[in-house]
Amino acid sequence: MHRPWLELALIHYPVLNRQGETIGSAITNLDLHDLARTARTFGVRRYWLVTPFVEQQQIAREIVSHWREGYGAESNPDRGEALGLIRVCACLEDAVSTINREPGTGQVTVVATCAREGVGQETLSFAVMRDQLKQGRPFLLLFGTGWGLAPEILAAADAVLPPIRGADAYNHLPVRAAAAIMLDRLMGDWRECPAR
Amino acid sequence: MHRPWLELALIHYPVLNRQGETIGSAITNLDLHDLARTARTFGVRRYWLVTPFVEQQQIAREIVSHWREGYGAESNPDRGEALGLIRVCACLEDAVSTINREPGTGQVTVVATCAREGVGQETLSFAVMRDQLKQGRPFLLLFGTGWGLAPEILAAADAVLPPIRGADAYNHLPVRAAAAIMLDRLMGDWRECPAR
Repeated sequence: MHRPWLELALIHYPVLNRQGETIGSAITNLDLHDLARTARTFGVRRYWLVTPFVEQQQIAREIVSHWREGYGAESNPDRGEALGLIRVCACLEDAVSTINREPGTGQVTVVATCAREGVGQETLSFAVMRDQLKQGRPFLLLFGTGWGLAPEILAAADAVLPPIRGADAYNHLPVRAAAAIMLDRLMGDWRECPAR
Repeated sequence: MHRPWLELALIHYPVLNRQGETIGSAITNLDLHDLARTARTFGVRRYWLVTPFVEQQQIAREIVSHWREGYGAESNPDRGEALGLIRVCACLEDAVSTINREPGTGQVTVVATCAREGVGQETLSFAVMRDQLKQGRPFLLLFGTGWGLAPEILAAADAVLPPIRGADAYNHLPVRAAAAIMLDRLMGDWRECPAR
């Protein structure tokens, strides 16, 4: 069995706001830490922080540097290990082309996530993606900030995972929770999980 | 099939610090919002915020009130709906005795969570607990802040769930991510999930 090749990207532009307009969102310290710790737990190779805003890129690098090299590295090395997965980039294409230049990966499959059903892309089930990860196929999994990924990002993806469904129509899971659930479904230890 | 009776408690005292000493932790706005949204998504009945510190209880009630009755209720009603699950209480016993006074629940089963294996309590598998939830048995699921639940809380629980295991020994999942994964395993929609 291969070690699965899964990378994650958190998109800050282009994403939607509550009115469905395309915006750029601000990075948050919280998303850096929580998603990095979850990504590190499940063996994700890199966590791409995607924002075209140079000042935002700089803030992200400063936060990472504090935990990798600054006082944080000494006080909490586990945190630095997680944040070490973060790569700051300006756009999705930069992440994809960097992954595709890695020796031996071939073309990465870009999979979007969305809280809504039927966004037009081919739906990939968790079971199929999990199997393909085990077979060594490289994947980049996209998460949106704000009110979700803009249509042009969904259109650029090769496939989309189904939304996480809860008890009823309430559909406002934090991106941090959705990412944790999806990584568990794709990469988690299933010995303890219920049968379907 | 019954609507499952699951309640959740986030314990701020007694919990451990990094040195393994028993402390009281501060409530965080983040844990209130993220856990409430995840709990609401998966049909959790109440989210108990357990802290003996009166000032901390007051802050928690003010945050909830902002989103239930204040400006937040108007600007983002979905958030208010999630935070409406929050009940502030001083100690675990208060939550347990309130649940046990509900008509028709019987005695609630208290289940702890822990990032470490072998904490001495009987281990309940996710599959068994999921089945018992479907059969209508009431459960209260405990999460710790800081470096986890203190031994006296673990000892007071009827059982413990297995820790979430990742790719290797790295074991620093945020409580928000662990709770999301566990609620998905216990209450999520399994049609999309991989077979074991």
